[in-house]
Amino acid sequence: MNKSLLTLSLIPIASVMHTYGTSHVPDNRPNIILFLVDDMGWQDTSLPFWTQRTMYNERYETPNMEKLAQQGMMFTQAYASSISSPTRCSLMTGCNASRHRVTNWTLRKNTKTDAVSNTLEVPDWNYNGIAQVHGTNNTFIATSFVQLLKDNGYHTIHCGKAHWGAIDTPGESPYHFGFETNIAGHAAGGPATYLSERNYGYDEAGNSTSLFSVPGLEKYWGTGTFMTEALTQEALKALDKAKKYNQPFYLYMSHYAIHVPIDKDVRFYDKYKKKGLSDKEAAYASLIEGMDKSLGDIMDWLEKNGEADNTIVIFMSDNGGYATGSGWRDEPLYTQNFPLKCGKGSAYEGGIREPMIVRWPGTVQPGTRCNDYLIIEDFYPSILEMAGIDDYDVPQEIDGISFVPLLKQTKNHSQGRSLYWNCPNIWGEKGPGIGPSCTIRKDNWKMIYFYETGEKELYDIPNDTEENNNVAALYPQIINKLSKELGKFLRQTNGQRPSFKKTGKPCPWPDEI
Amino acid sequence: MNKSLLTLSLIPIASVMHTYGTSHVPDNRPNIILFLVDDMGWQDTSLPFWTQRTMYNERYETPNMEKLAQQGMMFTQAYASSISSPTRCSLMTGCNASRHRVTNWTLRKNTKTDAVSNTLEVPDWNYNGIAQVHGTNNTFIATSFVQLLKDNGYHTIHCGKAHWGAIDTPGESPYHFGFETNIAGHAAGGPATYLSERNYGYDEAGNSTSLFSVPGLEKYWGTGTFMTEALTQEALKALDKAKKYNQPFYLYMSHYAIHVPIDKDVRFYDKYKKKGLSDKEAAYASLIEGMDKSLGDIMDWLEKNGEADNTIVIFMSDNGGYATGSGWRDEPLYTQNFPLKCGKGSAYEGGIREPMIVRWPGTVQPGTRCNDYLIIEDFYPSILEMAGIDDYDVPQEIDGISFVPLLKQTKNHSQGRSLYWNCPNIWGEKGPGIGPSCTIRKDNWKMIYFYETGEKELYDIPNDTEENNNVAALYPQIINKLSKELGKFLRQTNGQRPSFKKTGKPCPWPDEI
Repeated sequence: MNKSLLTLSLIPIASVMHTYGTSHVPDNRPNIILFLVDDMGWQDTSLPFWTQRTMYNERYETPNMEKLAQQGMMFTQAYASSISSPTRCSLMTGCNASRHRVTNWTLRKNTKTDAVSNTLEVPDWNYNGIAQVHGTNNTFIATSFVQLLKDNGYHTIHCGKAHWGAIDTPGESPYHFGFETNIAGHAAGGPATYLSERNYGYDEAGNSTSLFSVPGLEKYWGTGTFMTEALTQEALKALDKAKKYNQPFYLYMSHYAIHVPIDKDVRFYDKYKKKGLSDKEAAYASLIEGMDKSLGDIMDWLEKNGEADNTIVIFMSDNGGYATGSGWRDEPLYTQNFPLKCGKGSAYEGGIREPMIVRWPGTVQPGTRCNDYLIIEDFYPSILEMAGIDDYDVPQEIDGISFVPLLKQTKNHSQGRSLYWNCPNIWGEKGPGIGPSCTIRKDNWKMIYFYETGEKELYDIPNDTEENNNVAALYPQIINKLSKELGKFLRQTNGQRPSFKKTGKPCPWPDEI
Repeated sequence: MNKSLLTLSLIPIASVMHTYGTSHVPDNRPNIILFLVDDMGWQDTSLPFWTQRTMYNERYETPNMEKLAQQGMMFTQAYASSISSPTRCSLMTGCNASRHRVTNWTLRKNTKTDAVSNTLEVPDWNYNGIAQVHGTNNTFIATSFVQLLKDNGYHTIHCGKAHWGAIDTPGESPYHFGFETNIAGHAAGGPATYLSERNYGYDEAGNSTSLFSVPGLEKYWGTGTFMTEALTQEALKALDKAKKYNQPFYLYMSHYAIHVPIDKDVRFYDKYKKKGLSDKEAAYASLIEGMDKSLGDIMDWLEKNGEADNTIVIFMSDNGGYATGSGWRDEPLYTQNFPLKCGKGSAYEGGIREPMIVRWPGTVQPGTRCNDYLIIEDFYPSILEMAGIDDYDVPQEIDGISFVPLLKQTKNHSQGRSLYWNCPNIWGEKGPGIGPSCTIRKDNWKMIYFYETGEKELYDIPNDTEENNNVAALYPQIINKLSKELGKFLRQTNGQRPSFKKTGKPCPWPDEI
């Protein structure tokens, strides 16, 4: 109760006051934009995250990512899960995928999305996703950082892909996680199409033609507006509104791009054809540049509206670039994230290492590069720290660690720290490193353990970014130590593992073999 | 598109499991539906709330209200403010209008809606409405009971009219007050039109033609669906969804009906023409019956879905029936709420006494009638008590008192209690009891004090429901006592009063004259 507030009879309130509780301090908290791209590989940009420029850096044109990097800090070892839902659920909960158990992608209620194996049974994972309330089986209950931002006075905007919970479960709606505005987000993890000519997946009568039809963009149907652009225009309108509210805002700009289907963004397609790319690869490049233009438009909005100095922009992708099929790409399989091995769905670097940039005027030194590692669940405490929220009580245990010290260059929080992945699932496509596995990264070492075969691979990542040299046989003590640590973490977090169909027995933990 | 969709393995899972966290108790909390009608008078129904049947009870047909009353308790002295925003802000905050200061209707930011007076200056009231956060001038900050329901695991649905905050202020959006679904609610307090032929106020290009254009009903444009029906269909879809979430739900079914414009609901219009009503009055009656059908459809949904026994239904209106203009009605002015005097906007009973019914299976004795009084801010603690939420910490001081004891017939909480109204504003229409005033009701007595003239009127309400006999001159001691109590309350709650333009001095409080 706060009666004192009620005695403010004739107070000419200069705007942007933060008067929660008993304090009457101006609200100078930063706006925060998380610009999350879908299925974007580490090399799908003209901005080199590797030590060398690659042919991909030459091919793609992402001038706004370059500009953002000039204004902020690039992270060369930013990790996520190799699949969308695990990453996005870690983002929202602050929990490692081993703990939240949403270890494959979600869509239909009570329906696993795993491919069928003759030998392995996947565990009873949380195929219904995350939710904010109890009441639904196979769901992980958590309070999102977005809810905490909202509860602390942030205006919260969701634009684009959500993909946190199955259809007809509470986790399907961004509104249930603290978002106050939702543009086009729902249960599905990809778009039926980016094309307004196809009404983003709705027929002429306005009926959805697919579970992946993108809702809420009716006004752009038939207008020739590529969906990336439609989302951007809607996001800018939401920012206009946010400015009027005199609240700090959180914009989750979560593009459906560059997830398949790889439709042509005709604004950019011809340019890449002229560069000599195939139809498929030119379309892919056009999807990337359309996304980059959106980033530029948002940065322009910040400048024009006087919010640039007080807005943190975080750029990130949710998993590696698509590298396992010939339907959408012409490049040789598994090479599209070079120098990283394989891509989306793989335990190798191509599946999990992401392009990440953070721009934070006055705090992050422009044009800097951080080679320390971090992982997607770190975003939860980091964003809350950016917003000045350090006192919160949530039902889940937070695994993430704030990377703000890396931004401020006050402390290397990755040194001596272990990162963990757990994927007891069978994703639908095949390729190197795809299949049930768990992984640990500690300092230079990365060990992958494959549940089915019991095989362990060990890589010295900084010196073998390409993961060409498995040195497991050379370092049995390292293997032993990492196996113990990984096994301990998985058990501590109630991680899951597959079992053998033949015997019904669970696959061994990494430290049991 | 995700190819692995083709390889889905189907897992039948029993639903309604609580599998996480520390508690595993079934959630048996009741669903709650607040069915709020706009501008509906006490007599706009076939259900007699007075001791006698009137011609209005004969004229209108509201079979579903009758059914609801058979199943629950009718309240014959349920009060609200005489204008929409004050009532709705009291509902959401639990505060008396004197405290929240949203004492006239809201629409544009920083814009008073008061009529101009040559003699009085209205105070600097909260014309920007209520909000959940600081940052906007002339706004009352509160945490709504809906937010508390949501925070406690209720799924919260808004359908229809909101009208809590001005355009471009945080209070404009139901999502900012804890609603997780919003159908057609925004800043405006009325509809441009109920007609789908006019796209509810949008032109053919989809552009809004009025600040009162009703958003979010695009799919009904041009379909011949009267808006009351469109809202009902959307509400039922939201209930279907709510059932899947396995959460208790709160549905705020807040009809735009029967606010002007009094469009014909052709499903019912002819029937009333055949009864001999004029075009205007037949249209008015059709608006009422369309609203009543919506109530019936929702009650049917409860039955069909097995939720009837566990759902509380509260029927209420937000202020008196429209009685001050000839543009929309043919009845003689000020008579339409007979036996109550005047209507919407007036301090007399016609402005503030509402038709109210509560159906609560197992708790409320069916077919009962409660003659004790209550007021709109009582809904806040009452609904929270119904939901079992008794421990909450909110920034505002709650003036309301739970009416659950009246429902349970365990205690008459109105005996000896005073109800208060404060309206230092000048509503746009003229009529008896309309103008800056404050009012107190205590036991049988009701005293109205008019700020401009200093006049006081006193009525013995149960014995003079029509307010024909002002007995102020006969009971100076009662006047004195009530004036003191009213003045004290207004000052304690930081109430506002108009001032005289000539002198710049405030009008006296009721106990200063």
